[in-house]
Amino acid sequence: MLPKYIQNPKIKNALLAFCSRKYTLFSSPMAATEECLRKTLTEKVAAVEAQGNAVRALKAGGAAKSEIDSAIETLNSLKLEKAAAERSLLGGSDSREAFRQAVVNTLERRLFYIPSFKIYRGVAGLFDYGPPGCAVKSNVLAFWRQHFVLEENMLEVDCPCVTPEIVLKASGHVDKFTDLMVKDVKSGTCYRADHLLKDFCNDKLQRDLALPADKVAELKHVLATLDDLSAEELGAKIKEYGIVAPETKNALSEPYPFNLMFQTSIGPSGLSPGFMRPETAQGIFVNFKDLYYYNGNKLPFAAAQIGQAFRNEISPRQGLLRVREFTLAEIEHFVDPQDKSHPKYPEVADLQFLMFPREEQMSGQSAKVVRLRDAVSKGIVNNETLGYFIGRVYLFLTSLGIDKDRLRFRQHLANEMAHYAADCWDAEIECSYGWIECVGIADRSAYDLRAHSDKSGVPLVAHEKFSEPKEVEKLVITPVKKELGLAFKGNQRMVVEALEAMPEKEALDMKAALESKGEVEFQVCTLGKNVTIKKNMVTIQKEKKKEHQRVFTPSVIEPSFGIGRIIYCLFEHTFYTRPSKAGDEQLNVFRFPSLIAPIKCTVFPLVQNQKYEEVAKQISKSLTAVGISHKIDTTGTSIGKRYARTDELGVPFAVTVDSTSSVTIRERDSKDQVRVDVDKAASVIREVTDGQRTWEDVWSTFPHHSSASADD
Amino acid sequence: MLPKYIQNPKIKNALLAFCSRKYTLFSSPMAATEECLRKTLTEKVAAVEAQGNAVRALKAGGAAKSEIDSAIETLNSLKLEKAAAERSLLGGSDSREAFRQAVVNTLERRLFYIPSFKIYRGVAGLFDYGPPGCAVKSNVLAFWRQHFVLEENMLEVDCPCVTPEIVLKASGHVDKFTDLMVKDVKSGTCYRADHLLKDFCNDKLQRDLALPADKVAELKHVLATLDDLSAEELGAKIKEYGIVAPETKNALSEPYPFNLMFQTSIGPSGLSPGFMRPETAQGIFVNFKDLYYYNGNKLPFAAAQIGQAFRNEISPRQGLLRVREFTLAEIEHFVDPQDKSHPKYPEVADLQFLMFPREEQMSGQSAKVVRLRDAVSKGIVNNETLGYFIGRVYLFLTSLGIDKDRLRFRQHLANEMAHYAADCWDAEIECSYGWIECVGIADRSAYDLRAHSDKSGVPLVAHEKFSEPKEVEKLVITPVKKELGLAFKGNQRMVVEALEAMPEKEALDMKAALESKGEVEFQVCTLGKNVTIKKNMVTIQKEKKKEHQRVFTPSVIEPSFGIGRIIYCLFEHTFYTRPSKAGDEQLNVFRFPSLIAPIKCTVFPLVQNQKYEEVAKQISKSLTAVGISHKIDTTGTSIGKRYARTDELGVPFAVTVDSTSSVTIRERDSKDQVRVDVDKAASVIREVTDGQRTWEDVWSTFPHHSSASADD
Repeated sequence: MLPKYIQNPKIKNALLAFCSRKYTLFSSPMAATEECLRKTLTEKVAAVEAQGNAVRALKAGGAAKSEIDSAIETLNSLKLEKAAAERSLLGGSDSREAFRQAVVNTLERRLFYIPSFKIYRGVAGLFDYGPPGCAVKSNVLAFWRQHFVLEENMLEVDCPCVTPEIVLKASGHVDKFTDLMVKDVKSGTCYRADHLLKDFCNDKLQRDLALPADKVAELKHVLATLDDLSAEELGAKIKEYGIVAPETKNALSEPYPFNLMFQTSIGPSGLSPGFMRPETAQGIFVNFKDLYYYNGNKLPFAAAQIGQAFRNEISPRQGLLRVREFTLAEIEHFVDPQDKSHPKYPEVADLQFLMFPREEQMSGQSAKVVRLRDAVSKGIVNNETLGYFIGRVYLFLTSLGIDKDRLRFRQHLANEMAHYAADCWDAEIECSYGWIECVGIADRSAYDLRAHSDKSGVPLVAHEKFSEPKEVEKLVITPVKKELGLAFKGNQRMVVEALEAMPEKEALDMKAALESKGEVEFQVCTLGKNVTIKKNMVTIQKEKKKEHQRVFTPSVIEPSFGIGRIIYCLFEHTFYTRPSKAGDEQLNVFRFPSLIAPIKCTVFPLVQNQKYEEVAKQISKSLTAVGISHKIDTTGTSIGKRYARTDELGVPFAVTVDSTSSVTIRERDSKDQVRVDVDKAASVIREVTDGQRTWEDVWSTFPHHSSASADD
Repeated sequence: MLPKYIQNPKIKNALLAFCSRKYTLFSSPMAATEECLRKTLTEKVAAVEAQGNAVRALKAGGAAKSEIDSAIETLNSLKLEKAAAERSLLGGSDSREAFRQAVVNTLERRLFYIPSFKIYRGVAGLFDYGPPGCAVKSNVLAFWRQHFVLEENMLEVDCPCVTPEIVLKASGHVDKFTDLMVKDVKSGTCYRADHLLKDFCNDKLQRDLALPADKVAELKHVLATLDDLSAEELGAKIKEYGIVAPETKNALSEPYPFNLMFQTSIGPSGLSPGFMRPETAQGIFVNFKDLYYYNGNKLPFAAAQIGQAFRNEISPRQGLLRVREFTLAEIEHFVDPQDKSHPKYPEVADLQFLMFPREEQMSGQSAKVVRLRDAVSKGIVNNETLGYFIGRVYLFLTSLGIDKDRLRFRQHLANEMAHYAADCWDAEIECSYGWIECVGIADRSAYDLRAHSDKSGVPLVAHEKFSEPKEVEKLVITPVKKELGLAFKGNQRMVVEALEAMPEKEALDMKAALESKGEVEFQVCTLGKNVTIKKNMVTIQKEKKKEHQRVFTPSVIEPSFGIGRIIYCLFEHTFYTRPSKAGDEQLNVFRFPSLIAPIKCTVFPLVQNQKYEEVAKQISKSLTAVGISHKIDTTGTSIGKRYARTDELGVPFAVTVDSTSSVTIRERDSKDQVRVDVDKAASVIREVTDGQRTWEDVWSTFPHHSSASADD
């Protein structure tokens, strides 16, 4: 197996630019273990082979039976050692997959999610959230709104998914949002070119355990550089390795780009192409002007949006992690590029968590616990606002129930980032698929607003009024149109525009040249040639002007949350099993915090009995009145089985009616129970689920109830 | 103007089937007024014409100047009367449009909504919710979840928008979800054929005020029957009236159907057509089996879904009411067709509100206040469950702030309903566009589940276990395959299947014929011909069997909410203006209930002053802690202007800091103010916004504050 972080495409991507250092990367403890195991295995393979030869030689030479038997015994024990080495090398991935299977089975069986359109055999990459999954999702989103939108007074907007082409042309998605694809030349089945190459390499590395070291290194290099291969390079590798279509074994086409947006047509004419948005951010950028006005023309401010986004994956994989339709929650925080401080930064500055800065990645270290304040003050995190959001994201994810030891903030390597980005960190959560990017927190500078300003012609800018006007010196270029017209006739406009567009340095050079030589050669790109500019054709001079304000394009800091990925990781992090009382089976539990538990509480009569059912209904009514989602279970099933059922849905509390005056309340993970008066039950549940009160407090307030017979 | 209810396409539609009665419909008070006005106008037009002729005759005859002058004076006064009659006839629509313009201007200016992609000149039928609109929407949805999902323990699901063709083929959308379209034969611009015809008729009726009565009746008949015209009939009318393309005056193509779904392609092959769902319901139907299991295989239960739906309108109109992408909230309540009672029905049975049953519509009456219990017991509403949901929808809409006097439940006329539907009611809300269908509440019987059972081959059924087995007599048809094989060879299978599929009556007839004649002619559709069945080829007999359960397809009762339409009507119903204190301008107010107000409270220091700002920040922090959305306004603007700004956003309460120990709280509509201690302010605001306490109670508890100078 590859070290986990190498499975992350971003890291692999990064390796290309740092080829010379890539072996440093492999020297991490995990990689070291793997190298060691592989070396052991190679030795064992060689030993088995040698001993096999020895046995054959003894037989051929007519050696004594006892001698042959002894040699065979040695051979067999060597074979066992070889098998053990193979198991060690594969073991990690096996247990991870077994764990994942247990989680996914539970999720599907209890309808946390359902493959969409299942009765029609489904569609790859599309999933429904069933009742408990849908409840978890809406709890996560409600908390997101509380934690970000309300807390920061963000301007939440809600834009359509259908997006006209021009918007996504401006953003770059129409031209660049592609994956490389190959087709089975006979059947026409499509594959992601990099996936086929990746599968080939992984397969080779896993199955061919006696692969020579140089081949291992080569395949690993291919894997590490996969994301940076051009269409031609990918095609060459596919040819070189003789990779064919997995099902049919037919030959494959050359790789070519496939745009990942779902295309459609707006209106009936067929002349207005549109796409289902691949992200929600663009809806905010195009509204910048109105939102800035709404905010009283003041910076900084943040806009936010929750909504569906769509990516027409070539061949979706990894279950809920790589899907064709998903919910994004995005924040665009607009800020003056000259002042990226944040007033609330001190509130998070002392948080400590796993950070994985660029330097540590490059020098082969692993993520370390860092105090946020230190990362910002040392300039590892580019600015306070970025640091503030990193801190807030940490609080958000851990409040949901993400294990802080399997959460790290990884900085993008230089070549992972777009050229315009100032800095970028991903909140990565470790699950059975490896470290998964769940939140991206990027300082995208002024790129997006500029792109839409340019395309639409509408200036998306902010203004800073000076308290008193400032005198500034500006270089003013004034083409003399009359002279230029005489000299260039029909080309006059192009020459004028080129002169006006000169950067300051070039204009100053021209000024000097005109003053000394009287004329100068000047390249006009739009004409595709040089023209001769004479002294009388243009005046260039510095002028002093009074400016009352500064006009600038704000920078945007963008925390972008893949809600489905966060939820899937949450399922893995909160899942555990414990033996049933009889010890005959493993029971599944999700230890969801109340905040996101799909149902906060179940209510069941201990036995089927009309009086108890009345009490249960009464408590249910009180719970509804205080807005607590709950479920009554009046089936005659044993109480232990009913607890097990609710544990599997991650229900934190269960109220059992075993008398008409008082009931027991059971906490899911400790299985502890207290006894509470019937008329207090709903309010205790409310307090303990909405965070006003802890279970420890409830435990110390009410009489304990032990019911050895009931719970298992 | 047409009477409002005739503008509703459903009613127009209905008229076709009841042509003979349609003049009854026109005899409503409103129609009568219009007829009367039109008659007056016709008289005035004739009088002006006659008097004009008289004047010309006098002039031609050389009459005395005084005589001519007097005749001209009469002519002028007749012209004035004619103009007044014209104004009366048009007046209603003018004031409605002025009101709508005032609402829409406020909504756009305060960013309740924004035409999407505005900087690129927008896309017809796509709108963004800006910050306050988005907050209203999420409050409406949160309340919907509370009122329906939580209260009824519904199973909420969340399915993708991208839907494969087969699902929408089964539901009928691929074949039938169309509008008729015509194209400008030269420019290719597309129009909805019925819209052009409707515009032509309305225009004629409005502008040509002297239209003869028979022509008026004809045009009205066309308008009334518009929705039932076939493509051919529409095309013929367009030809007959000489209707051309509105902009270019070019000729138009024949009408042809255009499917309103946004089409796309799933995956890269181009071989898997998909659509953006036109409703969320199908996602629930295809999951029936799993949801039924999740509910412990028990009926009734309801599933619910909130999500985006898409309709690629040919030419969107009516602003926020007819858009290309919108949020639906749908409930599918599955119930045993033999038992449509509802345990919670008594809780709503005594509600009274405007109902407009089929009979009243047909007999030209208007909607009347009816007690729900009476409508259900008289069988006007088909069953208790349908009645229960009508009652719950009434409570939902009026809690949001919909005016109960402009809300009615209108029953579908017989020909408006699909053939399979048992009953259907629309919650219609009256706004400036007329009565708008905002919620549909339909008993769709078993149609949807059957359609998906048939297409997918997966039985979507429920089971009722009998307490003890029931003996039933069943007709059993047993084809004798050996004989059939000898007789029909290769066609044997088709004959066997046709025999087995015979309905009971046909089989009994065959049994009798075989017994009497020994053979019988039998039509095999799949062979396209008759075959001769002999006595030895099939046995048909009644057998007694014990059955342990009943297997049936549940009925579904579907309340379906157009969230955007509800919100738009809410904006109109809560909007009012009041004069500013100086009386020099009209101030806009939205009287949103706290439940849905986008911001619950504003906080402002009376004057710019650091101490007051500190207090304001402290209160803001307390409000955030208790989850109350609010806004601080520390601009130096006059307090009156600041109140006006927040009134226009529908903010119910304002906290003004005018000292460091106490503050005032102002209620939006009464403009009354009380004085409250600083440390109590947040909790009072919380209590009064989350419904624990009324403003009246606050008003009677705390000292009143009068600040004649502050508020206007």
